[in-house]
Amino acid sequence: MKTLVLSSVFLALSSSAATLTESETKQLTQLKNTALQSDLSYQVLESLTTEVGHRLMGSEGDRKAIIWAQAKMNALGFDKVWTEEVTGTFWQRGEAQAKIITPYPHDVVAIALGGSIATSDEGLTGEVAHFETLADLIAAPDNSLNGKIAFVSYQMEEHIDGNGYGPAVGTRVGGAVVAAKKGASALIMRSVGTDNNRIAHTGIMRYEAGVKKIPAAALSNPDADLLVNQLKRNKPVNFYLKLTSHTDPKVTAVSANVIGEITGSEFPDEIVSIGAHLDSWDVGTGALDDGMGVAMMLASAHHIAQLPIRPKRTIRVILFAAEEVGLLGAKKYMEVHEKNMANHIIGAEWDFGVGKIYKMTSGVGKESLTAINDLAKHLAPLGVELSNDNNAQAQSDMSVMSAAGMPSMNFAPDGTKYFDYHHTENDTLDKVNADDLKQATAVYTLFAYFSAQSEINFRK
Amino acid sequence: MKTLVLSSVFLALSSSAATLTESETKQLTQLKNTALQSDLSYQVLESLTTEVGHRLMGSEGDRKAIIWAQAKMNALGFDKVWTEEVTGTFWQRGEAQAKIITPYPHDVVAIALGGSIATSDEGLTGEVAHFETLADLIAAPDNSLNGKIAFVSYQMEEHIDGNGYGPAVGTRVGGAVVAAKKGASALIMRSVGTDNNRIAHTGIMRYEAGVKKIPAAALSNPDADLLVNQLKRNKPVNFYLKLTSHTDPKVTAVSANVIGEITGSEFPDEIVSIGAHLDSWDVGTGALDDGMGVAMMLASAHHIAQLPIRPKRTIRVILFAAEEVGLLGAKKYMEVHEKNMANHIIGAEWDFGVGKIYKMTSGVGKESLTAINDLAKHLAPLGVELSNDNNAQAQSDMSVMSAAGMPSMNFAPDGTKYFDYHHTENDTLDKVNADDLKQATAVYTLFAYFSAQSEINFRK
Repeated sequence: MKTLVLSSVFLALSSSAATLTESETKQLTQLKNTALQSDLSYQVLESLTTEVGHRLMGSEGDRKAIIWAQAKMNALGFDKVWTEEVTGTFWQRGEAQAKIITPYPHDVVAIALGGSIATSDEGLTGEVAHFETLADLIAAPDNSLNGKIAFVSYQMEEHIDGNGYGPAVGTRVGGAVVAAKKGASALIMRSVGTDNNRIAHTGIMRYEAGVKKIPAAALSNPDADLLVNQLKRNKPVNFYLKLTSHTDPKVTAVSANVIGEITGSEFPDEIVSIGAHLDSWDVGTGALDDGMGVAMMLASAHHIAQLPIRPKRTIRVILFAAEEVGLLGAKKYMEVHEKNMANHIIGAEWDFGVGKIYKMTSGVGKESLTAINDLAKHLAPLGVELSNDNNAQAQSDMSVMSAAGMPSMNFAPDGTKYFDYHHTENDTLDKVNADDLKQATAVYTLFAYFSAQSEINFRK
Repeated sequence: MKTLVLSSVFLALSSSAATLTESETKQLTQLKNTALQSDLSYQVLESLTTEVGHRLMGSEGDRKAIIWAQAKMNALGFDKVWTEEVTGTFWQRGEAQAKIITPYPHDVVAIALGGSIATSDEGLTGEVAHFETLADLIAAPDNSLNGKIAFVSYQMEEHIDGNGYGPAVGTRVGGAVVAAKKGASALIMRSVGTDNNRIAHTGIMRYEAGVKKIPAAALSNPDADLLVNQLKRNKPVNFYLKLTSHTDPKVTAVSANVIGEITGSEFPDEIVSIGAHLDSWDVGTGALDDGMGVAMMLASAHHIAQLPIRPKRTIRVILFAAEEVGLLGAKKYMEVHEKNMANHIIGAEWDFGVGKIYKMTSGVGKESLTAINDLAKHLAPLGVELSNDNNAQAQSDMSVMSAAGMPSMNFAPDGTKYFDYHHTENDTLDKVNADDLKQATAVYTLFAYFSAQSEINFRK
């Protein structure tokens, strides 16, 4: 019984030292109810996917999205809205054709990896050389694949936190370089994805200076299964691949980070950042990746802008350009705002997952942990548990900012089904659960309000 | 207690009057164990999908499948194997391109309906006229759709017994004729399917003499959702469609029913038929539709062929040609075997579902119901319940034979997910659960043995 009494005392003390005042806490509770009842984030996402569609860096959709985002920020009551130009190269997907030739003619569902060169106009054919993992491909002798098409069949595992992605994505990013070193004419790989649809997953790949560039494509999981079964029969499997994807070196792709603020009422120079990336791959409508994030950040800021008084600090919504093609928007943001990094109080991005948020992990100074515990108490009724680790880096774009010293929060949503749809045509609005989106929006709303209204220095 | 005693007596009597003898029942139990432990049906299905692939009436795959099926029957110990030629027209899919032009350019996933004519080489464009149901399209005034593309957005419902198919399939079969009568230049429709993938569902459609033929295509469910959302904004949605599908009137497609028998040891002229269709649509590998059925029938007959003595009656496995394009194989079978229909003791087909069999319904004479109850007792441990209805027609091809008086059994598998994959590229081996396939194979094995070993006249 003693321990119980002690803990009550501790709770009482903890409560009296709370980060927010009683009226601020009341405000926060009202905000929570507002966010949980509002379908604004879903409406915003419906607008983005229905009126704009996909938006690869440099594409028409990208330009349209930049205009759309500014208009939405203005309509939703942001105090300040602007863009910062981001430039890069413009890769175009073109068309992909892939076929099994023997044992029987069969159209294969394939997609060019982002950045891949084209094949010749006639396409290329070759016998398939099968490797179960990238390590097996790395272990192949040089020139052992001359004239062949290297095929890596590694299957990504499904996990709630998406940790199957790491072991799988290496083939996508670096496989073409390895295959080229062995003499292969092309790389084909099982998609980095957890679904069993005849839909292939794209994503960025890289070439290396001094290594011959070869075309690289991903196959759908059922097509990869079929190849594996055919290869088991120990008879040659011949494959045809044609890609028309290319990067025009003369064209500069112009995009922009779109930034909007709810200006702080007491410390306008202190910035709480919430963000997502505005670009998407050029397949699907980018509803999950990262339309959900865009919609959540806009809705969260709007809910806070509806309060009678602005929070003390500024809430900055950063919609990054060109995340998919190499964090170009994030790098540009750092260039422009590096000198002001000390004023970036804390930040959180959303660029993963499709289900409810179930965990939060801080990356803050030790003295701030009491405040983080306070925030966690407000989020616990939403089903969010505080991790004991205090080692979070912000996601995706904002990882560049946390690397530069910005404290951060990482909210972990259920990602079990995320890699069923990631970087595919299937990344569309119907995959988003409206209730889950409300919960996640509420979490970011509370995080932004709490961090902006408190005077905590999260670096300490 | 009295009733309990009575029921024991009844059970004892019922047991003494059982359809099979004690040693036959033992045989049946052994067969059940063999079928449940064997992965033969899965192996056969893997072979069909890996070595042959899809097999549309008249295609190279179709010809390959006919050779494959005969070879498998011979290898699996059938006593007699032959083919019966089936001819028809040869429709070729060609290519489909579909795009939303306004509000923003967006590639739409579309597939030509089976039998559709092509558009012109340039394709066609038109404003989308939206109808929620076929009934709404029927209600539109004549000429009201001149120059427009008719779009029916009706969403098929998901049910365990697949009964959402009926209300949805009318648009696919007859929608183009209705749309043409109203002046539309083309029909587009939401796929008849229950999935949310960017994959469209094909299937047969019909033209009508005297009505202008217009091209007809199905869109994936997410693409149909997008169109609906765009149309809600009450601004014109313009659409582009190009199909190159066509039927060459000079070409006769030649196919064949493939038939194999385990010849009866006492009544070889009395035929118990089990069947499936060998053809498939020209997308996917026809694993579910109807590769599973083909594999189950071959494996069932093989298990019975392994017994020391052939059952009394002949078990005939009929692999029908050209089911998808209009039951051409079934009609041909009737032509050839009509005079012998009285010797067709009972039949059962598999052409629906992907999960375990949970229900059986007979379509037999009243006197035979005791035997059906006996069979049901053997199947009950497999999770199969006997329906009280005694009104079954056999499925698909065999419906033609039950219409001609053949008694039949209908085994109902779980079809909840069947229409996620039906008539799509996604109809591939990975969708088949190996354990469910064992159970279903065991059911057909027992049905075939029971019906062939008993001397029941199922017409009575």
